[in-house]
Amino acid sequence: MSLENKAVLIVVDGLGDRAVKDGKTPLQLANKPHLDKLTREGSTGLMNTLGVGVIPGSDTAHLAILGYDPAVYYKGRGPFEALGVGFDLKEGDVAFRCNFATVDDSFRVVDRRAGRLKDEGPELAGSLQNLEIEGVEVIFLPSTEHRGTLILRGEGISAAVSDTDPHSAEIIPPLQSMPLGGDDAARRTARIVNKMVRRSYDLLSSHPLNKERQKQGKLPANVLLTRGAGIFQKVKSIKEKYGFTSCCIAGSALYKGVARYAGMKILSVKGATGRVDTDVRAKAEAARKALKQFDFVFLHIKGADNASHDGNLEAKLLMIEKLDLLVSILSQEEACLIITADHSTPICVKRHSSDPVPVLVYGDSVRKDRVTSFDEISVASGSLGQITGLELNKIIVDLMGFGHMMGS
Amino acid sequence: MSLENKAVLIVVDGLGDRAVKDGKTPLQLANKPHLDKLTREGSTGLMNTLGVGVIPGSDTAHLAILGYDPAVYYKGRGPFEALGVGFDLKEGDVAFRCNFATVDDSFRVVDRRAGRLKDEGPELAGSLQNLEIEGVEVIFLPSTEHRGTLILRGEGISAAVSDTDPHSAEIIPPLQSMPLGGDDAARRTARIVNKMVRRSYDLLSSHPLNKERQKQGKLPANVLLTRGAGIFQKVKSIKEKYGFTSCCIAGSALYKGVARYAGMKILSVKGATGRVDTDVRAKAEAARKALKQFDFVFLHIKGADNASHDGNLEAKLLMIEKLDLLVSILSQEEACLIITADHSTPICVKRHSSDPVPVLVYGDSVRKDRVTSFDEISVASGSLGQITGLELNKIIVDLMGFGHMMGS
Repeated sequence: MSLENKAVLIVVDGLGDRAVKDGKTPLQLANKPHLDKLTREGSTGLMNTLGVGVIPGSDTAHLAILGYDPAVYYKGRGPFEALGVGFDLKEGDVAFRCNFATVDDSFRVVDRRAGRLKDEGPELAGSLQNLEIEGVEVIFLPSTEHRGTLILRGEGISAAVSDTDPHSAEIIPPLQSMPLGGDDAARRTARIVNKMVRRSYDLLSSHPLNKERQKQGKLPANVLLTRGAGIFQKVKSIKEKYGFTSCCIAGSALYKGVARYAGMKILSVKGATGRVDTDVRAKAEAARKALKQFDFVFLHIKGADNASHDGNLEAKLLMIEKLDLLVSILSQEEACLIITADHSTPICVKRHSSDPVPVLVYGDSVRKDRVTSFDEISVASGSLGQITGLELNKIIVDLMGFGHMMGS
Repeated sequence: MSLENKAVLIVVDGLGDRAVKDGKTPLQLANKPHLDKLTREGSTGLMNTLGVGVIPGSDTAHLAILGYDPAVYYKGRGPFEALGVGFDLKEGDVAFRCNFATVDDSFRVVDRRAGRLKDEGPELAGSLQNLEIEGVEVIFLPSTEHRGTLILRGEGISAAVSDTDPHSAEIIPPLQSMPLGGDDAARRTARIVNKMVRRSYDLLSSHPLNKERQKQGKLPANVLLTRGAGIFQKVKSIKEKYGFTSCCIAGSALYKGVARYAGMKILSVKGATGRVDTDVRAKAEAARKALKQFDFVFLHIKGADNASHDGNLEAKLLMIEKLDLLVSILSQEEACLIITADHSTPICVKRHSSDPVPVLVYGDSVRKDRVTSFDEISVASGSLGQITGLELNKIIVDLMGFGHMMGS
């Protein structure tokens, strides 16, 4: 029996749910023999990631689980997206999530996603390079499909500005970014953002690829819409805070971004798509390999959240079965396994909710409570009780042998 | 399955208890088949309304459950009583709870309730109109029996003053109101209150109705005693905070007052007495009707608390049976039902206590935990765990679909 441990943290996005069929949650309905076996041999509980009744975002929930109090560290989503696509942010950079969108001749948004672009982003991005507005460097990075990230780099800028994305199906012009506060930096940043939206239209509407799309009767990706402004501030890495090495296996940019923010090494895994079709076997094998090199492996599975947002019970059950396969592979390792979700995404409401999520801590020497099934109802009587994301982090750090005593 | 929900919150005042007979609580002893049926189909837990070990007042407990942190918003009970009898408070008004009492010829209180007046309050109040002391307007409003509310309106006043009600069976003069702090406003207000008590004696002792009472050998209601000073400050309504409409069905002034403070519409129900004899069927029907118009219905039942303060187990069991009837009617609606208490009032001590109270959240898609009986012991293993009043509020707001995500 190992005294101190390596650990794998598996976060299944949006796994928690409500009574969806025959009064049962997807976890109660699914076939998951390996998860239940581990449950019988571990400690369980419920996690209110950000506190009871608080609806967690994906970014804030992961910050908490990785040990960064969102009330202190969360400065908007943009920086995590930028970090997630591999961009090296500098202290003070202001980053935004971005969409390629379509505006009509009257500059009204007719599609927030430009007909859901496929892989045209990088080519279109070619016309958005080396930009500068009011002396501030403007950097655009394409991501998957219609998505991208916009970064402002320079003096006297702020993240206290509102979105230009109208977040609406109504056909209206992009919103004017407004300063959210009275300071000069916010006013200046809002002005730069508004100019950049106009500039993107000028640059993109004449792009040959858009001309071609229009010929084919497709929507042109002729404007950028911004949202989720956040300022980047460097923080202590997990290594600096606790002393152990760590890595991240994830398909989607956001989770890689949060992991990079925490100083984790990002491992790239073929077949990790961030969707229901993700290859969990490949992820499991990558995690096994990573355990030889790192103390802590954070493995993110996105598909269950996608399934919930689509209201698709079958797909969610499939993701739980994939999770079962994943843990059957990983339980062969000597490392501790921690299995949980960042938040619930109940199929019946197709959005994040505050319902607490199940937690399982499994390892040789971990206390074995009386719970025999990994689901929201069974683990409610588990020996971990009800904990928060920050508390789970502390439990993991101690289990790994890197905790610090309070007092002596 | 409903996507987002309307909700009825039923608060049974003082419902929680201790082991009162055969080692069981009244909820364990009572016959309540409908409550238990809903319990089998819902989520349960225990609520420490203001935190573990804190004895909640009725006012502070309700503030918390409705989403107003008492540590921030509670400024004394007076304003809630004034609002509860329908008075329109203005910002800065200082309100007191008041009793008609009896003083003897030596100005000593011989009965704090003037022999528990029946319905003479309004007639006596006729002599207490259009008063002004030191330039401050003094308004008296009679309430039920010997009760009333006193409001001071003007500049330079404060709620930091002590009670004149001696709260004692000892025959002593009314207490001198004292400033609770060093400022001029408190000193001035205490002086005005003391003058008002004297003035009330002058005005009431010569009232024909009191002359008549004395002839009949009854105690004259010849003085006003004040307590529970509080200053009124307008707050954001529930509609402004969360976006949903709400109404209140209650028999007693305090609860209507807290509801008005939160911007809820007060519905008047014939037979809602605030006592053990309350007509729960009428209240249930009023709630069903209200659901057509409002998103959220707060339904208060007082009788269980009265029974506990009287040490009357039979009456408390009767109130639980009435609650069972109430939920049998309301469970036919599509709305979520939340059933709880503001605090425990154990029969053995006849006062509020810090013992946590049971909570049941019932609705189509709500998780169904393994608890099968709605009582303090059974729900302790429920899936909600132990929550606070403010946390229950957040859970309800999210369940109704009006929550806000923290992060994105």
